Amino acid sequence: MRTTVVAGNPKPGSRTLDAATRLAVALTGEQPDHLIDVIGLGPGLLGWGDAQVRAAVDTVSGSDLVVFASPTFKATYTGILKLFLDQFATGDGLRDVTAVPLMLGAGPAHALAPELLLKPVLVELGATCPAAGLYLIDSTYTTDTRILDHVERWAPTIRSSLRSEAS
Amino acid sequence: MRTTVVAGNPKPGSRTLDAATRLAVALTGEQPDHLIDVIGLGPGLLGWGDAQVRAAVDTVSGSDLVVFASPTFKATYTGILKLFLDQFATGDGLRDVTAVPLMLGAGPAHALAPELLLKPVLVELGATCPAAGLYLIDSTYTTDTRILDHVERWAPTIRSSLRSEAS
Amino acid sequence: MRTTVVAGNPKPGSRTLDAATRLAVALTGEQPDHLIDVIGLGPGLLGWGDAQVRAAVDTVSGSDLVVFASPTFKATYTGILKLFLDQFATGDGLRDVTAVPLMLGAGPAHALAPELLLKPVLVELGATCPAAGLYLIDSTYTTDTRILDHVERWAPTIRSSLRSEAS
Amino acid sequence: MRTTVVAGNPKPGSRTLDAATRLAVALTGEQPDHLIDVIGLGPGLLGWGDAQVRAAVDTVSGSDLVVFASPTFKATYTGILKLFLDQFATGDGLRDVTAVPLMLGAGPAHALAPELLLKPVLVELGATCPAAGLYLIDSTYTTDTRILDHVERWAPTIRSSLRSEAS
Repeated sequence: MRTTVVAGNPKPGSRTLDAATRLAVALTGEQPDHLIDVIGLGPGLLGWGDAQVRAAVDTVSGSDLVVFASPTFKATYTGILKLFLDQFATGDGLRDVTAVPLMLGAGPAHALAPELLLKPVLVELGATCPAAGLYLIDSTYTTDTRILDHVERWAPTIRSSLRSEAS
Repeated sequence: MRTTVVAGNPKPGSRTLDAATRLAVALTGEQPDHLIDVIGLGPGLLGWGDAQVRAAVDTVSGSDLVVFASPTFKATYTGILKLFLDQFATGDGLRDVTAVPLMLGAGPAHALAPELLLKPVLVELGATCPAAGLYLIDSTYTTDTRILDHVERWAPTIRSSLRSEAS
Repeated sequence: MRTTVVAGNPKPGSRTLDAATRLAVALTGEQPDHLIDVIGLGPGLLGWGDAQVRAAVDTVSGSDLVVFASPTFKATYTGILKLFLDQFATGDGLRDVTAVPLMLGAGPAHALAPELLLKPVLVELGATCPAAGLYLIDSTYTTDTRILDHVERWAPTIRSSLRSEAS
Repeated sequence: MRTTVVAGNPKPGSRTLDAATRLAVALTGEQPDHLIDVIGLGPGLLGWGDAQVRAAVDTVSGSDLVVFASPTFKATYTGILKLFLDQFATGDGLRDVTAVPLMLGAGPAHALAPELLLKPVLVELGATCPAAGLYLIDSTYTTDTRILDHVERWAPTIRSSLRSEAS
């Protein structure tokens, strides 16, 4: 099984990336195979056909499980994450990928955003999103129980989705 | 496996109910075990504790696969369907249920509604919604290929979700 | 100017109704002309053509300013409120009405719901919704500053919309 | 009165820009004062503090009326548009700006996106969005009546909002 973490934070090496990695580890028991810190792809994201961007898209498309993570900007996911998602083929770009939407925010007010806003983009790309979207508080996600609670609640559903896509 | 169809149309015996039944048959190869035409539950829906409403909730909660169907009223699902959904326990009311959101409309303009509006309510109730929401045109769903296309695309994902919940 | 408060809580005389009334008073400096506690309309809401429901719809349609209020059920507005909104004509039912979406919840997690979920229904009915949707915590709205903050921020915008519709 | 058009299409000189300009002209009777074709701002969009991006933000913030336009990518607005919107201050970045959300798509299926997805971002930035979101078909917007219908329906509301913000 191949697991990838995608973090769409304009700051490299962000808490977004860290939280997404922790979630992937909690779901699979292993370090993710690939970390894609979208901002590192640079200006090639602004057009089409950049080789590095293409390679990142292929890594994601070829993964079994992908955590898509974003900080909350303007009550929704970031432009940088969407810029990357715009590179995938509509309907099929995430086919056979089990995707987990994750967002982080400074406070709880935007907790609906992963489910209402980020997940539908992933579904439009053809991903299977069997679990509820997860929202974390960026100052407490390393100490609170939200990641564990989510994993306890949804990991069986996610794992079964993975086995299915693999078969 | 127990399959249930829930139709939230203020008119009994609606095309909504028919389309949802067709979708259930296309997904499972069998007639659904239960049809719940919500309007038939009557005024007990306006409060809590009605025995007939309670029985319908239990039927749905105890099902493996449920198609939740609504016509499009005011660009979203109906009040009558939401009234029924309000009877379920938040977080757990649809736990271990694989749910398929279905909406019908007169034209294509509201095609995003099942994914953006109906699915999140089902997820809030704890349902597993592994497939994209489906939108049908109410005048052509018996002759167009939308139900079949959806089943071809998503039935494997839905079936695997069912096996998982059953295990 | 005619102001109406609509509360869609299955419990009569709810905090929803109280909070909506307080918001209307804070916006206008006067008690609202009409209070519509939707649950009081009874089983006529489940069909079409009930005289009492019709009168309530006409009261709302003929108002200049309407606060539409709902508790948060399953991460969105209630079925009882939507049942009432389904009685209005699409596109024109709230034409020339300035509408303010208000939701209350036990905690902050659903704060996006008035803007993302309730406001679009009002706009679909033709209402002018110039202000952001407001979300209140049901246990603290009488003591916190959220209503006042909202009024300070948005009342000028709402009042100008009212003058415009009146002209 | 200062009018600005913002187009978030990765292709410069797009139909998105053209349609947004036509809408601005139809609303005001004049050519817009500023056209911001976001892609032209280049890689400075990927970070903070770029002078050209800053100037574009200031132009928009200082405008009375702004049409925010995007093609539909993955059933919502583009990453390039969101990247630009992420440059504004939350809550106040579009204060006193009357904003009109506009999206174009190849077909009608995503017609709910301007209202459900683009408008909430503008409201989060503090914009006044008194009119419904507009969705155009990219192959027919120069010949169909959608722009005119929208202007006939909503221009009085938008103009009154403008007068109010100016006062």
